[in-house]
Amino acid sequence: MMYPELVAHIRRFIEFSEEDAEKLANCFIPVKPKKKELLLEPGKLCKGNYFVIKGCMRLYFVNDKLTEQITQFGIENWWIADNDSLLSRKPSRYYLQALEDSELLLLTPQNHNKLLTPLPNFETYLRIMYEKALVASQRRVEFILCLTDEERYRMFSELNPAFIQRVPQYMLASYLGFTPQFLSRIRAKKA
Amino acid sequence: MMYPELVAHIRRFIEFSEEDAEKLANCFIPVKPKKKELLLEPGKLCKGNYFVIKGCMRLYFVNDKLTEQITQFGIENWWIADNDSLLSRKPSRYYLQALEDSELLLLTPQNHNKLLTPLPNFETYLRIMYEKALVASQRRVEFILCLTDEERYRMFSELNPAFIQRVPQYMLASYLGFTPQFLSRIRAKKA
Repeated sequence: MMYPELVAHIRRFIEFSEEDAEKLANCFIPVKPKKKELLLEPGKLCKGNYFVIKGCMRLYFVNDKLTEQITQFGIENWWIADNDSLLSRKPSRYYLQALEDSELLLLTPQNHNKLLTPLPNFETYLRIMYEKALVASQRRVEFILCLTDEERYRMFSELNPAFIQRVPQYMLASYLGFTPQFLSRIRAKKA
Repeated sequence: MMYPELVAHIRRFIEFSEEDAEKLANCFIPVKPKKKELLLEPGKLCKGNYFVIKGCMRLYFVNDKLTEQITQFGIENWWIADNDSLLSRKPSRYYLQALEDSELLLLTPQNHNKLLTPLPNFETYLRIMYEKALVASQRRVEFILCLTDEERYRMFSELNPAFIQRVPQYMLASYLGFTPQFLSRIRAKKA
């Protein structure tokens, strides 16, 4: 079996035989970005959907005020991509960057299409991944609209304890939409 | 063909033959809520995924400050559901309410499962729907984090001109996370 981590993850959600697993062979491109390496830049097409075997990635753009706005993180067993660029085949507005030396599996749209007929249940797995990502994104909207910075920080820390340790505080602040005031208070506490 | 609106929508995204369309028969339950009718309440399981043929729906919850927080709208050709309850089979925290007399097609998880084997391309259609919904949700996070109330209102109006006419201003304010100050300013301008 070529992709044990991915197959193990698929099996958390759907039935997936050894035979199914064999059909994935050569449909993913291994990508091993070093820390800080960029896999996507504004103006480029997103190459596909990345499954994270190991490491940590972030998707961000630079807003009008020239600050980095992080829209997604990806750690082990998460998928990360600029889905907007991927779906519409339009150039991206984002950077996709490794925050640690990482190991990824890239599924290009071409290889994805090749899997549809021989492996229809893989589409069910992907549908569930998108459904989960949608739930997470909608929950994030709720947190931003309904919780104070302090509540949001506590909630996120409880839901993602391992994550908090791996990502610099200022990136978390960008992701969670903290005010600069709250960010300096966290920093002051840490010091 | 039993569901012409749905089939027309599916064909915008994937190839879908007459034979495919016939296989959908009896897998959807027509639901026709009257204006203000609730199809889901907190504590209940979400019955499935609703495709909107006609009308307008909203998904919302009541937050700690006892105000309604709208998380999703659904108009013609949109799908709406509490995906969290649907995926996890846990009781919902949401209300799903008709804002107009509406016509929907309900896809229950049981009927969805029945379609997987005979109609694998329907799963591709749903995967694309979730991918689009994810892109929209992530864009909404960006708007909330990066734009002022005024910019957000203008952006949303430009992207959804028809929608602005159909939904009461205070609901739009809830969805877009406006400050009460900004909402009263819009109201004053209208008056």
